[in-house]
Amino acid sequence: MTTMGAVYIAGVGMTKFGKSSQTLSELFCEAAQSALSTSPIQDIEALYIGAMNPEEFIGESNVASQIAAELGLTGLPALRVETASSAGAAALHAAFQAVASGYYRHVLVLGGEKMTHLSTSATTRILAEVIDKQERQCGATMPALAAMMTERYRKKYRLSHSRMEHLLCRVALKNHLNGSYNPYAQFQQSISEKIYFSSKFVATPLRLYDCSPITDGAAALILTSEPTDIFIAGIGQGTGPVSLRERDSFTSFRATQVAASRAYQMAGLSPEAVDFAEVHDAFTPFEIICTEDLGFFPPGKGGEALESGRTSLEGSLPINPSGGLKSRGHPVGATGVAQVVEIVRRLRGESKPKPRRELRRALAQSTGGLGANNFVTILERTAGLLQVQNLWTPPPLPSASRRLSRKGHPPAPASEAGRIETFTILYVTPDGFLPPLALALIRDRKGRLLMAQGEDISHLKIGREVYLRQVGDTYLFTVKSHLRKVREAMRKLLRRSPSLPSTSETATIPYDRPKSKAQRETV
Amino acid sequence: MTTMGAVYIAGVGMTKFGKSSQTLSELFCEAAQSALSTSPIQDIEALYIGAMNPEEFIGESNVASQIAAELGLTGLPALRVETASSAGAAALHAAFQAVASGYYRHVLVLGGEKMTHLSTSATTRILAEVIDKQERQCGATMPALAAMMTERYRKKYRLSHSRMEHLLCRVALKNHLNGSYNPYAQFQQSISEKIYFSSKFVATPLRLYDCSPITDGAAALILTSEPTDIFIAGIGQGTGPVSLRERDSFTSFRATQVAASRAYQMAGLSPEAVDFAEVHDAFTPFEIICTEDLGFFPPGKGGEALESGRTSLEGSLPINPSGGLKSRGHPVGATGVAQVVEIVRRLRGESKPKPRRELRRALAQSTGGLGANNFVTILERTAGLLQVQNLWTPPPLPSASRRLSRKGHPPAPASEAGRIETFTILYVTPDGFLPPLALALIRDRKGRLLMAQGEDISHLKIGREVYLRQVGDTYLFTVKSHLRKVREAMRKLLRRSPSLPSTSETATIPYDRPKSKAQRETV
Repeated sequence: MTTMGAVYIAGVGMTKFGKSSQTLSELFCEAAQSALSTSPIQDIEALYIGAMNPEEFIGESNVASQIAAELGLTGLPALRVETASSAGAAALHAAFQAVASGYYRHVLVLGGEKMTHLSTSATTRILAEVIDKQERQCGATMPALAAMMTERYRKKYRLSHSRMEHLLCRVALKNHLNGSYNPYAQFQQSISEKIYFSSKFVATPLRLYDCSPITDGAAALILTSEPTDIFIAGIGQGTGPVSLRERDSFTSFRATQVAASRAYQMAGLSPEAVDFAEVHDAFTPFEIICTEDLGFFPPGKGGEALESGRTSLEGSLPINPSGGLKSRGHPVGATGVAQVVEIVRRLRGESKPKPRRELRRALAQSTGGLGANNFVTILERTAGLLQVQNLWTPPPLPSASRRLSRKGHPPAPASEAGRIETFTILYVTPDGFLPPLALALIRDRKGRLLMAQGEDISHLKIGREVYLRQVGDTYLFTVKSHLRKVREAMRKLLRRSPSLPSTSETATIPYDRPKSKAQRETV
Repeated sequence: MTTMGAVYIAGVGMTKFGKSSQTLSELFCEAAQSALSTSPIQDIEALYIGAMNPEEFIGESNVASQIAAELGLTGLPALRVETASSAGAAALHAAFQAVASGYYRHVLVLGGEKMTHLSTSATTRILAEVIDKQERQCGATMPALAAMMTERYRKKYRLSHSRMEHLLCRVALKNHLNGSYNPYAQFQQSISEKIYFSSKFVATPLRLYDCSPITDGAAALILTSEPTDIFIAGIGQGTGPVSLRERDSFTSFRATQVAASRAYQMAGLSPEAVDFAEVHDAFTPFEIICTEDLGFFPPGKGGEALESGRTSLEGSLPINPSGGLKSRGHPVGATGVAQVVEIVRRLRGESKPKPRRELRRALAQSTGGLGANNFVTILERTAGLLQVQNLWTPPPLPSASRRLSRKGHPPAPASEAGRIETFTILYVTPDGFLPPLALALIRDRKGRLLMAQGEDISHLKIGREVYLRQVGDTYLFTVKSHLRKVREAMRKLLRRSPSLPSTSETATIPYDRPKSKAQRETV
């Protein structure tokens, strides 16, 4: 049996994150040069590059060859790895396997993205391509889907609206405070509760300060088979459904759980062994959910832990001490590499403020799409010459052949009534959709889930019954109680104006009613 | 030191290549199911997916998670690897390292692309994003650059126009004949010389039948650490400059040479040990160049070997027995995987026509962009339970730190005269460029290379002197001898019509002349 080789980190570097006048190539070069300048290893044998979508962000294909050329390394093998917003972590993962195999001894891992030169709506459209097609056609954006998960989380763990808001605000305040110490962060200023609550809703209950910004930047790591002071103790990847409506949980990410379990198993560690973590807080609620998925806190208890200060810089398990995506910024392809750069610097005692205790192990978690392609990496500080014991054997998985089944493509036509599983009101909508836009995940009477647009933004609540109708590929819903009110108002109107024709009710109510009385009664 | 684990191939499968009504996901599923149906290994642990540009071909990002979901394998790690048109080979390369490391035991490698639903001009535009920006802005397409290399090859090896045409025709005829036996090929018909020569020029000297078609398709491989009848004896990758003007050779691909030398070294083999090969004949001249880069024939001798029949199905070293990209088709992300699928079937004796001798070893070569990111994989048939000896240690490379230098971006302004290094007349032009379009690689008086558009399509020849002028970001050239003729004609005209003002010469000649007599004389 093959013995997996130990993989160490020799050098780390990154650009300042934010709005940059540099090209993507220039950002990659700066990060690479910064990593090489801190590395005892200089003989790079290959490049592993993480980038989400340079094709559409900058109109360039064949990025790996281009970067090799820009670095003056033409000839050297260079490939690009992509898993949406976790592309940087994916490049690290592939590079880890390349060095662990003994095929290469030293490789350069790069992650980067150039985004700020485009309009927000263009960037939003490109980022939204990771979303399931039917949900995207309905007007769903990443913030909309994150908001719908948040609403569901609030309901599941019986949190009041104000308590949920308060928790999200705490994540934003903590990460902005942490970012204020980080010279590489996009936002290096702490924010107040007042600032947080005065920011506008993007998709209820998420405000602008709940969303990570649009950012340019790049980060670099040098992996080597030669022992250094930091090694990769565990690494794991997992996928989850792309669409929201195919999930069995709306309050956790299975992909993180799978990735974490593999990484812990390989490292022979449990979550308690982790001293601090950088997690993918693209939206503030994801930080809370992530700390639960990683096993740091039980499901539904992430908020309490946050509130108690355990995840603050001075707490027992700092989360996102670098400021996280929220304040460091989120150049999508760079983030998964930047998290590890930040961890290595902190483990080496190079970050501010200096921790009061010695840090030995840390974890990085990266998310691709809506938790559809996630990675967990555990890093450990050694005395410099550690002999690594590989405790990991791959976990048994159900046979692929048995599970291999092609899914049906278009969602089956919905029956005419259903119930709201979760919802959001979107205030920042994609091109072609006017705000405010109500979106809800509806479970129809046959138990199927589908994404639908509200005909009205009022009366939304998890559990409410709705009527559904289909217009082209899009489902529209109306809350039943609201429908009743509209009808009553209509009847009153008809009584007052007897001159109106009696068919006007049908003509003016913009939804299909159940076809028969019997059908209506079973609803 | 780490012992690299041996990697075997358990199952292979592919869709028929061509114009398909299936979605990209459906193509991937069909290929995966076909590979699993022939594989003793079913417990897939991860997916490695090669796709060049689903973002722009089908408007979808996050393809790896989507494919995992479509296959009913959600949860399983899945990542996408991309190196332009060699993306399938890149996915195989990364998957090889994953299994060789012992991190995974069994992985599914997929390559696929969906292209035929777009217009030819849209597809050409997307494929052209791999081209250097300055050359692209000039109107260069992939066929244009391939044509310019061909013209240079012809000149370097002193071949007449008709001899060069004849050789290219031979490649097309051979590969179409081979494809006629292949039930998976897009074109399953042999063609005649007459058909070849009646096809239109795309970019001189390349005709339609010199170019691989636009294709839909997918292919799949199962890699495993458990011994099977086929193993990966050697594998290597190399990069080359993206732009044509930064090359030291216009008649070979350094990236193929680097990749091949690594693969041969790992396998402990020389080119003579190879029984047949599938190479990246995106354009017919590339097959000839490739057989030279791989060490099968000396530089400039690939044509003779082809003509003598050595590379035919019945020859001593069949090249592209499956029909190659030319007749099998070229769904870009699928090709690198499909080549290996075809090789495995032929090594197993499953392909038609049956070879007359036993085949033991074969080589696959895949090209990304204009030879900018290439792969070589050597496959070997075993008795079924071979103990692999790893003879390979990574070759020493010059220090990255010394070579690491950021290149200047915009080409420096050219001096006003130069010489044609190579050229083509493009008859199928990108949107916004009217055919026929003359393109040439010009070496200016300072020795710099630049891509330029001809103001006229006549008088083009390698070595001819030209005048250059710059309009915006684009260089325009005029052949000097032609300029003299225009002037003479103008003088005659002026003598005949003395009423014309004497400044008309300057006004009607659309190029800048050298500024001084002295300068003109040094040209």
